[in-house]
Amino acid sequence: MIICTEFDTINKKPKVVVKLTNKNLIDLEAMSVEQIDKIVRRAKKIMKSPADYRHACDGKILATLFYEPSTRTQMSFQTAMLKLGGRTIGFDNPMNSSVSKGENLKDTISVISGYSDIIAIRHPLEGTAMAASLYSEVPLINCGDGGHLHPTQTLTDIVTLSCEKGRLDNLKIGVCGDLLNGRTVHSLIKTLAKYPNNSFVLISTPELCVPLYIIDILEKNGCKYEISNSLADAVTDLDMLYMTRIQRERFKSEEDYQAQKNVFVLDREKLDKARDDMIILHPLPRVNEITVEIDDDPRALYFKQAQYGMYGRMALILLLIQDDDFLIEERPAQLFDSSTGCQARCKNPKCITQIETYLPRRGYRKLGMRMCDYCDKRID
Amino acid sequence: MIICTEFDTINKKPKVVVKLTNKNLIDLEAMSVEQIDKIVRRAKKIMKSPADYRHACDGKILATLFYEPSTRTQMSFQTAMLKLGGRTIGFDNPMNSSVSKGENLKDTISVISGYSDIIAIRHPLEGTAMAASLYSEVPLINCGDGGHLHPTQTLTDIVTLSCEKGRLDNLKIGVCGDLLNGRTVHSLIKTLAKYPNNSFVLISTPELCVPLYIIDILEKNGCKYEISNSLADAVTDLDMLYMTRIQRERFKSEEDYQAQKNVFVLDREKLDKARDDMIILHPLPRVNEITVEIDDDPRALYFKQAQYGMYGRMALILLLIQDDDFLIEERPAQLFDSSTGCQARCKNPKCITQIETYLPRRGYRKLGMRMCDYCDKRID
Amino acid sequence: MIICTEFDTINKKPKVVVKLTNKNLIDLEAMSVEQIDKIVRRAKKIMKSPADYRHACDGKILATLFYEPSTRTQMSFQTAMLKLGGRTIGFDNPMNSSVSKGENLKDTISVISGYSDIIAIRHPLEGTAMAASLYSEVPLINCGDGGHLHPTQTLTDIVTLSCEKGRLDNLKIGVCGDLLNGRTVHSLIKTLAKYPNNSFVLISTPELCVPLYIIDILEKNGCKYEISNSLADAVTDLDMLYMTRIQRERFKSEEDYQAQKNVFVLDREKLDKARDDMIILHPLPRVNEITVEIDDDPRALYFKQAQYGMYGRMALILLLIQDDDFLIEERPAQLFDSSTGCQARCKNPKCITQIETYLPRRGYRKLGMRMCDYCDKRID
Repeated sequence: MIICTEFDTINKKPKVVVKLTNKNLIDLEAMSVEQIDKIVRRAKKIMKSPADYRHACDGKILATLFYEPSTRTQMSFQTAMLKLGGRTIGFDNPMNSSVSKGENLKDTISVISGYSDIIAIRHPLEGTAMAASLYSEVPLINCGDGGHLHPTQTLTDIVTLSCEKGRLDNLKIGVCGDLLNGRTVHSLIKTLAKYPNNSFVLISTPELCVPLYIIDILEKNGCKYEISNSLADAVTDLDMLYMTRIQRERFKSEEDYQAQKNVFVLDREKLDKARDDMIILHPLPRVNEITVEIDDDPRALYFKQAQYGMYGRMALILLLIQDDDFLIEERPAQLFDSSTGCQARCKNPKCITQIETYLPRRGYRKLGMRMCDYCDKRID
Repeated sequence: MIICTEFDTINKKPKVVVKLTNKNLIDLEAMSVEQIDKIVRRAKKIMKSPADYRHACDGKILATLFYEPSTRTQMSFQTAMLKLGGRTIGFDNPMNSSVSKGENLKDTISVISGYSDIIAIRHPLEGTAMAASLYSEVPLINCGDGGHLHPTQTLTDIVTLSCEKGRLDNLKIGVCGDLLNGRTVHSLIKTLAKYPNNSFVLISTPELCVPLYIIDILEKNGCKYEISNSLADAVTDLDMLYMTRIQRERFKSEEDYQAQKNVFVLDREKLDKARDDMIILHPLPRVNEITVEIDDDPRALYFKQAQYGMYGRMALILLLIQDDDFLIEERPAQLFDSSTGCQARCKNPKCITQIETYLPRRGYRKLGMRMCDYCDKRID
Repeated sequence: MIICTEFDTINKKPKVVVKLTNKNLIDLEAMSVEQIDKIVRRAKKIMKSPADYRHACDGKILATLFYEPSTRTQMSFQTAMLKLGGRTIGFDNPMNSSVSKGENLKDTISVISGYSDIIAIRHPLEGTAMAASLYSEVPLINCGDGGHLHPTQTLTDIVTLSCEKGRLDNLKIGVCGDLLNGRTVHSLIKTLAKYPNNSFVLISTPELCVPLYIIDILEKNGCKYEISNSLADAVTDLDMLYMTRIQRERFKSEEDYQAQKNVFVLDREKLDKARDDMIILHPLPRVNEITVEIDDDPRALYFKQAQYGMYGRMALILLLIQDDDFLIEERPAQLFDSSTGCQARCKNPKCITQIETYLPRRGYRKLGMRMCDYCDKRID
């Protein structure tokens, strides 16, 4: 049970909200280690005997609401549902939808949750999945809300690690590329930091180094970590190397992008220095940060990883739809504070509250600061 | 059986056509009260025990041909078919289809009706569904042909009314908003006028008042009606209030639109004056004509209405595909007149006959005027 | 078993490749007459008792990867898979896919072949299906690679002919329209030339005459043929007339297109001179080369042909997925030559190797020339 204060923008006054825990996956941090382990175990069971699950979701409908295109993620969810015997509806282009006639998120979700048994949503604005979950009568999965969160990508990584290394603890993990903007990297580090005795090598240029709050998390969890600016040096003693794309759209100028994009490239020469049992993951799509020459190396698992992701999503859908005990806490209760005084408006220009102005203002206090409950940015 | 004259544009001469009644839903007016009641009864049965219908359309395929996007309507039809065990194919963008290579409607329908068991079509031009039905070998449903007809929206309204009020007669019905251009309002009034003892309150600005022919229909059916320009006054004694969006695209200038758009807004204050058992419907999407503050009011049924619509569409699909006795008259026979001399060409620039010039010219006589059988506009 | 040399662009040296025969349909020429007959027989069996095949592909997934839109072909494949009990995923617009983030073909195929049981691919560049097949772990079907090949269209034509004429040999076949650029015409001629005693009437303007290599094939196979510039004359004694669209996009100027587009039009007058048992086929979409006035003539089979195509695709999917003995030779072995020295780069600007530069360079020798194994154009 969660008690929090929100500012009701409709009646223009604060109100105390008591929420039941719920069945949405908005933020992987809200999931306990036990829940993650449960998903991984279920994914393995499905992989082992997929025929047993072929009718597990007979008659159920998944709605994929993609307010920005992401064919890969959408196809992975669709395939997952189809392989469970369910069906899918949805859109991949807001211009074809009622949105283009001025419809707000609340109305779209209210209607679609009357058609479907589970919703998978992607949106360019931060906090959208959280906002949508307020109005959905069926479980809802965050498939990416701007640069904020993308929990099922991390789920994919975790399932892959567990299947290929046989454990989620006692691992030495290298992450390489854009550690500043890469939401998948942040989420992966936060999740693996919960498991005992994992250590991290953070490989990036100084400009694209991990944000301080990630370092905070590592230190609080007592994780060992090193910062490195040489992939060749770092690669020699890892259990897993997580490569990421330098995302053009995150840079202010083409010049800045060009300066960064070729710094870390995993090629045959560097890979030859790695251990034989190291595995290479990548959230895909890649651009040039892994050369195609190593695709056939048995350590290159990024394509297989996409398949693990599909099984992870099958497990997630199943648990959210069928397992009444599988309740995900929306927000760790201690973060909420009924005296927050959350009527202040979030000023993050990429927050969904900027557009959907009827949304109740919800916040929490963290390290003495007031934070927006949708986009997790500081309110003031 | 229907006998009419059409002008064969291919052989360039009039010919008499004898048509069997058929299994298309082009215009809800062609449906008898008994047929509407049959759909409503079937929708209720499906709602009550959906599992009984989960395999009703096993192996059947619905083609959704959307020549202009309308995700909401398309998803409603797709969901309806999937919940009956059927499958769907289709497109939502003519630019991705053979149409962009210059294919005419006749050829598209001829091919698709060879792939599918039922077709749902939407098109920006008036009369397209009627034209398409001439070439389809499977039942065809009109999902909107320009500003002309959208019968399954009215079906949605009727199912909602019947389920929520328990009857379709003896109702006092308020309709509010753009009564001039709103095809859903016209269709709803025409349909409810067929049931005994319904009365209407027509709430609009003078500029957006209902067309005269609707008043004619009300008078011919002996329905009581009042014209009102105050939503606050009118709302006090209604069984149902039907709110509609002021559609920007119908106005000549942005100025005209702005002048009209905020005149009638249903808010908490006005709703407080309404009866406790009044229900509020809206075809959606809404813009600002209903404030979000009343969405949680138990009388606000517009989201539930969308769900009723899905059940109505399930019933319709089932009856068109499976019930051999469920034949819909294409046009009330008395409207046809073999001496019409229908070789004149329809001049309505939004009529499908402007583009698809091979279509036979078909007309009927009404109040002494010659009317186009596709778009129902005066020919001369 | 196939032995060939390819130039490994990654390791920058030639290597000898031994390939098993495989289960892709890239080029219909790779299929034996026995295999074509097997597909036709299977298609007929499915037509006869479709209910027997309703669950033949239960639990299987077809991915339709359409890098350029072709709704007709995509819907035909989707319908085929749905009617076999399978499901479909896919896209019809590369801009909505990971491709727009810079992903290469290899990665897309590697991931999607982990989601699906069979892939149908269409792409504007020549040789793409062949290139994709190198990275797919599931059977792959070419649905059109630029102006190069479109084997399932020819399969459609063959199924139609066999069902409607009862044979694939001893036929007098007229082909009319753009015989220069029409890939469907070339493929049909090449296929029918393999069956005994077929003769051809090639009806076109001198500008749009068949390429010389087609004449070569006819002569090598000992087929009779005539060249005609009069549809009215040629139509009188045919078993089948194959009409094709003059494709605007193939012409250098609008003027050239206008000059050609109305030369051959099949109308009532010309059709009246044809035999009663002649059948008319067309790959669709048509523009104006067949007038709508003859659509109701029993000889006009182009709409029914689309339906035959669906059954042909059902048979093909079934055989590729289920029949372990149905192996299609990628390339007639004798064309390969380990001394080809295929490191030269294909210069065809429309070849997929221009964009996907990591592709191994593969070639074969034909009539003393070196040919690109992807697009079948001369390398030097």
